[in-house]
Amino acid sequence: MTGKFITFEGIDGVGKTTQIKLVAQHLTESGQQVVITREPGGTAIAEKVRSIVLDPTLQLSVRTEALLFMASRSEHVEQIIKPALLAGKTVLCDRFCDSTFVYQGLTHGLKVEDLADLKALNLQATGGILPDLTIVLDADPEQLLQRRNERGIADRFENKGLAFQENLRQGFLALAAAEPERIKVVNALGSVEEVSEKILSIIIRNV
Amino acid sequence: MTGKFITFEGIDGVGKTTQIKLVAQHLTESGQQVVITREPGGTAIAEKVRSIVLDPTLQLSVRTEALLFMASRSEHVEQIIKPALLAGKTVLCDRFCDSTFVYQGLTHGLKVEDLADLKALNLQATGGILPDLTIVLDADPEQLLQRRNERGIADRFENKGLAFQENLRQGFLALAAAEPERIKVVNALGSVEEVSEKILSIIIRNV
Repeated sequence: MTGKFITFEGIDGVGKTTQIKLVAQHLTESGQQVVITREPGGTAIAEKVRSIVLDPTLQLSVRTEALLFMASRSEHVEQIIKPALLAGKTVLCDRFCDSTFVYQGLTHGLKVEDLADLKALNLQATGGILPDLTIVLDADPEQLLQRRNERGIADRFENKGLAFQENLRQGFLALAAAEPERIKVVNALGSVEEVSEKILSIIIRNV
Repeated sequence: MTGKFITFEGIDGVGKTTQIKLVAQHLTESGQQVVITREPGGTAIAEKVRSIVLDPTLQLSVRTEALLFMASRSEHVEQIIKPALLAGKTVLCDRFCDSTFVYQGLTHGLKVEDLADLKALNLQATGGILPDLTIVLDADPEQLLQRRNERGIADRFENKGLAFQENLRQGFLALAAAEPERIKVVNALGSVEEVSEKILSIIIRNV
């Protein structure tokens, strides 16, 4: 692989999409070829998997859910991420393995040290491909909600509940604490420009 | 787990369904509670997974296919197999992990000694549950086809080609050679009664 694989993680509404676009713009201007993609999504199978996972009549176990997302990821890597990396492109991905570790692991009672099975499963799904760098955009869910309310953004963020968002947030922070080389935490509550500058300086230093 | 988990493997048309029914009948008459199930199938998610795997527009990699079948298996174990075993019932399952090892492994160029990843994946999907005993019904595909033609059975067996069926057969035999304690090979070309007697004597001795 000659290209670099950078993933962006964090709770909904924290600004991942906006920041990824800015990073892509900057890297493109500096002469790199950039591919933006996201999970779950990016391939035809992803939509099918999503419809299964969201089907309320199925009531899947979290283990089954993880395996379905892994199947979707396997195809995502095969069809989009790996070819781009092989072609020397920089891949920016909105959510990847760390979201699985949080949503199907840490929020289901697992500790970071219990994630070995999910991590092994992930390596199988990706054929061994892991992010070179992961940016966790971090914010206090309550402050984030307040800011979004002030801006008049009404979205699904609120519905899931602040306690759950805080639980997710702590999951991402725990992952970052366990893998400080790969996972960098960025305070997402500054202005878009401030946050972008922090992210770019991390990318320049680490990739 | 107090119940016993017996799986039946072998190429299409070799007589698994018939033999499972006879085993179930015998065990039921001897006072056991028996559950018959099959893969891929047995749960609502199985049909959805099957429709994805068979969708020609998706062209999934074999890795993705394996992960999808594992998701289906995870739910199958959770909803049907594990509760039955916990209740002390004998579970007879038409195809299980060895079909995955053959169809998504050995027929894709893997050797038995390369199956560690698929086996680890399977253990994750089943939560550690493995068959106590596996019966491989074995027959030369050419003789099987001849016999079926004589009986006027026209089915999908023929469409896949004899060479492919022989390839599958050799896969099951290789698995049995590597795990002789768990996997027993039974010649499936005798009369239904002869084959049934052989299977029952193996079950009585090994479970």
